[in-house]
Amino acid sequence: MQPWQDPNRSVTERVEALLAELTPHEKAGQLGSFWPIPPEDDTVAGDVAPMSTAFAAGLPWSDSIEHGLGHLTRNYGAGPVSVEDGLAQLRRLQGDVVAQSRHGIPAIVHEECLTGFTALGATVYPAAIAWGATFDPELVREMARAIGDDMAAVGVHQGLSPLLDVVRDYRWGRVEETCGEDPYLVGTLGTAYVQGLQEAGVIATLKHFVGYSASKAGRNHAPAPLGRRELEDMLLPPFEMAVREGGVQSVMNSYSDIDGEPVGASVELLTTVLRDRWGFTGTVVSDYWSVTFLELMHHVAADAAAAGRLALTAGIDVELPGTSSYHSLADDVVAGRLDEKLLDRAARRVLRQKVELGLLDEGWDAQAQGRDRDLDSADNRALARRVAEESIVLVKNDGILPLSGTPRIALVGPTGDDPRTFMGCYSFPNHILSRYEGAGLGIDVPSLADMLASALPAGNVVTALGVPILEPDDSGIEAAVAAARDADVAVVAVGDLAGLFGRGTSGEGCDAVDLSLPGLQGRLVEAVLATGTPVVLLVVSGRPYALGEYAARCAAIVQAFMPGEEGGGAILRVLTGEVNPSGRLPIAIPDHPGGQPGTYLAPPLAWYSEGISNLDPRPLYPFGFGLSYTSFELSDLEASSTQMDVDGSIDVSVTVSNTGDRAGSEVVQLYLSDPVAQVTRPIKALIGYAKVPLEPGESRRVTFTVHADRTSFTGLRHERIVEPGDIVLSVGTSSEDRPLAVTVQITGEERIVGEGRVLTTPIRIEP
Amino acid sequence: MQPWQDPNRSVTERVEALLAELTPHEKAGQLGSFWPIPPEDDTVAGDVAPMSTAFAAGLPWSDSIEHGLGHLTRNYGAGPVSVEDGLAQLRRLQGDVVAQSRHGIPAIVHEECLTGFTALGATVYPAAIAWGATFDPELVREMARAIGDDMAAVGVHQGLSPLLDVVRDYRWGRVEETCGEDPYLVGTLGTAYVQGLQEAGVIATLKHFVGYSASKAGRNHAPAPLGRRELEDMLLPPFEMAVREGGVQSVMNSYSDIDGEPVGASVELLTTVLRDRWGFTGTVVSDYWSVTFLELMHHVAADAAAAGRLALTAGIDVELPGTSSYHSLADDVVAGRLDEKLLDRAARRVLRQKVELGLLDEGWDAQAQGRDRDLDSADNRALARRVAEESIVLVKNDGILPLSGTPRIALVGPTGDDPRTFMGCYSFPNHILSRYEGAGLGIDVPSLADMLASALPAGNVVTALGVPILEPDDSGIEAAVAAARDADVAVVAVGDLAGLFGRGTSGEGCDAVDLSLPGLQGRLVEAVLATGTPVVLLVVSGRPYALGEYAARCAAIVQAFMPGEEGGGAILRVLTGEVNPSGRLPIAIPDHPGGQPGTYLAPPLAWYSEGISNLDPRPLYPFGFGLSYTSFELSDLEASSTQMDVDGSIDVSVTVSNTGDRAGSEVVQLYLSDPVAQVTRPIKALIGYAKVPLEPGESRRVTFTVHADRTSFTGLRHERIVEPGDIVLSVGTSSEDRPLAVTVQITGEERIVGEGRVLTTPIRIEP
Repeated sequence: MQPWQDPNRSVTERVEALLAELTPHEKAGQLGSFWPIPPEDDTVAGDVAPMSTAFAAGLPWSDSIEHGLGHLTRNYGAGPVSVEDGLAQLRRLQGDVVAQSRHGIPAIVHEECLTGFTALGATVYPAAIAWGATFDPELVREMARAIGDDMAAVGVHQGLSPLLDVVRDYRWGRVEETCGEDPYLVGTLGTAYVQGLQEAGVIATLKHFVGYSASKAGRNHAPAPLGRRELEDMLLPPFEMAVREGGVQSVMNSYSDIDGEPVGASVELLTTVLRDRWGFTGTVVSDYWSVTFLELMHHVAADAAAAGRLALTAGIDVELPGTSSYHSLADDVVAGRLDEKLLDRAARRVLRQKVELGLLDEGWDAQAQGRDRDLDSADNRALARRVAEESIVLVKNDGILPLSGTPRIALVGPTGDDPRTFMGCYSFPNHILSRYEGAGLGIDVPSLADMLASALPAGNVVTALGVPILEPDDSGIEAAVAAARDADVAVVAVGDLAGLFGRGTSGEGCDAVDLSLPGLQGRLVEAVLATGTPVVLLVVSGRPYALGEYAARCAAIVQAFMPGEEGGGAILRVLTGEVNPSGRLPIAIPDHPGGQPGTYLAPPLAWYSEGISNLDPRPLYPFGFGLSYTSFELSDLEASSTQMDVDGSIDVSVTVSNTGDRAGSEVVQLYLSDPVAQVTRPIKALIGYAKVPLEPGESRRVTFTVHADRTSFTGLRHERIVEPGDIVLSVGTSSEDRPLAVTVQITGEERIVGEGRVLTTPIRIEP
Repeated sequence: MQPWQDPNRSVTERVEALLAELTPHEKAGQLGSFWPIPPEDDTVAGDVAPMSTAFAAGLPWSDSIEHGLGHLTRNYGAGPVSVEDGLAQLRRLQGDVVAQSRHGIPAIVHEECLTGFTALGATVYPAAIAWGATFDPELVREMARAIGDDMAAVGVHQGLSPLLDVVRDYRWGRVEETCGEDPYLVGTLGTAYVQGLQEAGVIATLKHFVGYSASKAGRNHAPAPLGRRELEDMLLPPFEMAVREGGVQSVMNSYSDIDGEPVGASVELLTTVLRDRWGFTGTVVSDYWSVTFLELMHHVAADAAAAGRLALTAGIDVELPGTSSYHSLADDVVAGRLDEKLLDRAARRVLRQKVELGLLDEGWDAQAQGRDRDLDSADNRALARRVAEESIVLVKNDGILPLSGTPRIALVGPTGDDPRTFMGCYSFPNHILSRYEGAGLGIDVPSLADMLASALPAGNVVTALGVPILEPDDSGIEAAVAAARDADVAVVAVGDLAGLFGRGTSGEGCDAVDLSLPGLQGRLVEAVLATGTPVVLLVVSGRPYALGEYAARCAAIVQAFMPGEEGGGAILRVLTGEVNPSGRLPIAIPDHPGGQPGTYLAPPLAWYSEGISNLDPRPLYPFGFGLSYTSFELSDLEASSTQMDVDGSIDVSVTVSNTGDRAGSEVVQLYLSDPVAQVTRPIKALIGYAKVPLEPGESRRVTFTVHADRTSFTGLRHERIVEPGDIVLSVGTSSEDRPLAVTVQITGEERIVGEGRVLTTPIRIEP
């Protein structure tokens, strides 16, 4: 047994022993990857020129593994393959890798897993924006653990999730993949996902570090015009939380360039911030082809080799999805163009993960025994259902909901009977299967039409979808109007179809010009409203759409965020009242469709609220908002003190009561305001929240422990500080509805907050 | 005679002698101002809450002048007052100021002058965006000199123009006040304006230093999410040019906060950049109420006094338009809350300007002898006409233009017969007179309808405007369609009405949700197009509007940018061919109306051109584009060398020929590309241009002298550098049409460019 194979030695010993054996080419081999894409899927990069160029530049299999291989890319997610066949392929590939490697080192196998494991027949959970709407980190953690269990069972070691991008522009196609517009919500839910996945033994990967969501006009890959303060206070905190509190083991760089500097070449972000400041010790993996994009898109490198040197130096350890640039690193070292220490640094990190994963232990390949694994088990489905149910947001209700009796329902609109609309862009059916003509979904995904049919007497539901999402075909509007006219209530189900690079209305490369309902859906809504039949508007989407044109005329509005395979039932149960809606908006719903000037955090809001611009950007329904079939009241706000030292903390308590006659959950939200500061700050910012289930008549006391660090911000000298002076802590049920507030004086001298600051607000819920 | 009154002493001696005499309160008095607004104009701040709050907080006249007064605000521009009455009021006010001052110091009198002197009956020149379209700095300089001559004649010392904001988002209301989206174009034209105004003895004021144009979604006063590199390379250069090459004597701060720091409180921008780096020695005046906005809008000061201390410390010397904060500075000094040196620093700058203006000389009040001044002289009108003619851009022509014979014309659309649409938001009629019900324009501004009527036989022109700009009234569309149906050609005149704070579709506080033609004008265009009568689409606007819906079906498209009082004739002469159009687009015309992800300078463009986003942001007509009734050819591009030292320069020459059969002018444009750099750079950037008039068959040789400094940019270490390596210099007639190019190697070591860099590209034009 070689020292690096000895499980009784320390990880460090094993890593160093192995590293000492490796040639520069073998070290570089550990930094490369290969994507076993089946021949029929050679259009993976679509018509996207730089992607197909970079893909074509990848090494073939034999060259990829000549000196060992770092990662195997998406063995299951490359095409429609059964668990059995996938496992067999994986064993074959790993066998080649091990055989080729002088030291018998297998590859790390990674997959996508944002809405669940991206494998044929695996459970499709709700999209990340729906997790945002749950405001329930524990549930997200449970879901991620279930996802990780399935992946680990079939030999997958790393999952490329979650996204910790904070939404800055609703037009961005990838809004659906995020947990919303608030850094604290994104950070807490993302950290919960990391914990869950890693509890299953699967490495989580934070995407996309950092700045992707801040691209100009929300266009995919557009430059990010960010200042340092916005970066530090709005975009970095969720990543810091997932690194320091979630212990995440991998991070993926963003494609972005921030103020002209591509992140993939940024020593500052990938090394100074991530490792030196936050203590991150895992691997940084490149977003697919982003190393070569330093040459092809950002033009900061003259050729692929130069791009590789830049990326390695900055801190990208592993090149994904194939080896296009990193194979030249060894030659660079041999020729003296690159310091071998940089190669060692990255190889050491990869080897450490392989040791920790047990890949250098004898019997490592016994890990993947999941040949008969049911990737869509009943437990999974129950979990998917709970997440879906908790994520649906009721934003308007004149009393028509829950539907009572057995009304005649006209189900209208393209998301009413198309299961694809329930699934995100990174779900296996939409991401992979959609490219295989005639492929089924691989799992059972009942639509709302299916569920209504099963729940109501035959003849009580007439389905007439009206218009498609993508095509400009209005031929069905007449039938939809006729159906609505004859019904007691029209459920108008509009929204998105997720896809890739223009193949959908939401998803990667599916950006929006504005926030109008896609295609002809706005016309359909107008036509049905004109019938006079009460309209329940159901929006099933990945981004918010402007509803100001319609809202006043709708009897009710339900916002569902791509609720996954159990979405149909979840929506039905919300409509019928079997489930009392408890989702809250993780992104605002805008009033008008023009590009919005920001989220609720855009500081300062005075510029609009007082007539200085003719355009009022206030949303129709604000961040954090959501209704219930019962009613809640907040009372008795109390702070343990009205003073807090610049390094101290206080408790803020509030009572939340269910004042209605049915059980339900309220999300109690704590916001910070800073009336005078040395820089402009948000008018309010979420710093704590608690989802509290309450029986009718029940009251509970919620206590937030707020450390002074939670009031900190990047000051004038670009240091993170706690500033003495008054702050206001307000409690409410949305960012706009904050009925209770207390002013607290922060005392002492301005304090520079070092690394290790308090990132969260602990909550205590008492009967 | 006191030493400060002695014209034989040096300016410095006089200033120091006077300063030494002043108490802190008298020093503070020199930093204050007063706006003599007539009672009927008490709504100057409209419904804009922070403005009216700040206005109400201003000192009354007697308190304002108790210790002397720095500035008198808009004596003529406050309301409709004749030259005679204005002069009388000015003498009275100055008399009070001098009488009140222990040392007999008059106030500096400032006025707005963006589209001409803002006084009743003064010439209204084209809006700044139209100067941009002329690409003719000499003409702009001549115009500014004429404006300055009129102002000086009636006792005005300072003009609050020009704007050097670089357009970043076309939805911003103030696009019309800028010279466009290119820093070099803005900088050269702005510098020419400064030189012209100051040649007339009137101090020019650069607006708005800096960042105003980069507000989120183009909303007035919204935060500016700028990184340092974008600030340095895109927004600061025009200001640097006007300071260092134009010798401007005053600068106005921007209302913006950049990445959380309000410019009005920024030592870095107002002192380090402006004075320490660029050597600016004049005064910084506050944008109206922006000192108190540090309290009221940005919340970086707890009260007005604190706002005043912040602003003074940062480098704002004079508070405009009234004294709301600065009166407490003296008490602050006396109480030890403020260093008197800061008061001295600002007072010294103001006193220096007063000495230089001759305001401390005996007989200073003999300056203003313009009682009989004709502010709209024939010379002025001829100049306004030339600027208008040179600014009109022909962007499409299937041969219908110039109109030949005596066609039957239907003149349709709301800019066809409303002289207000020819004038910018800061023109006296739109800015001031529009608030006086029933007021005329004060000058003769013939509309296009007027001009057509005078040029064509009676009965040949039918005017039916169709729809208004602001109101949603479609009752006139039918008549417009009928008129078009009966005509040989329909001239459809659409566009903007400039106004303030929502009273128009363009102008300060008149931002756009998207780039659709305002109101119902799009419907009007569609209705007229449907008649089949050939359409000449005339857009008279302050911002570009998306014309992709209509362009292919129009016979011709003419873009006029608020062409001023002579606009009607200028447009007519372009339509008839009496004038051969020579304007070029200073901003692109977009294809579709959604918020654009940037201007032609947004780096790098790879992200869209290759399918990575589904949305293609390329414009319909690019920056720099414009047609002529003749044709031009570029040939024989030659560089004096294909190598250039990092501190050297080369000559690039090209021949431009008029290959058509009528005289015309081409704008030869030189662009820089940098194929590989250490940061992402624009795909191309304008670095030189020359407007060349050519007779039919004539050729001229244009030589650009390009210094290596012109290729410099803010590098990774945030220093301005010249980077060795290849650059590409291309020559063309728009940012997209660049048929000739030469690659030049920059040799030597990377060079840090100190202050004093070469800012311009000298041009030589030879027969």
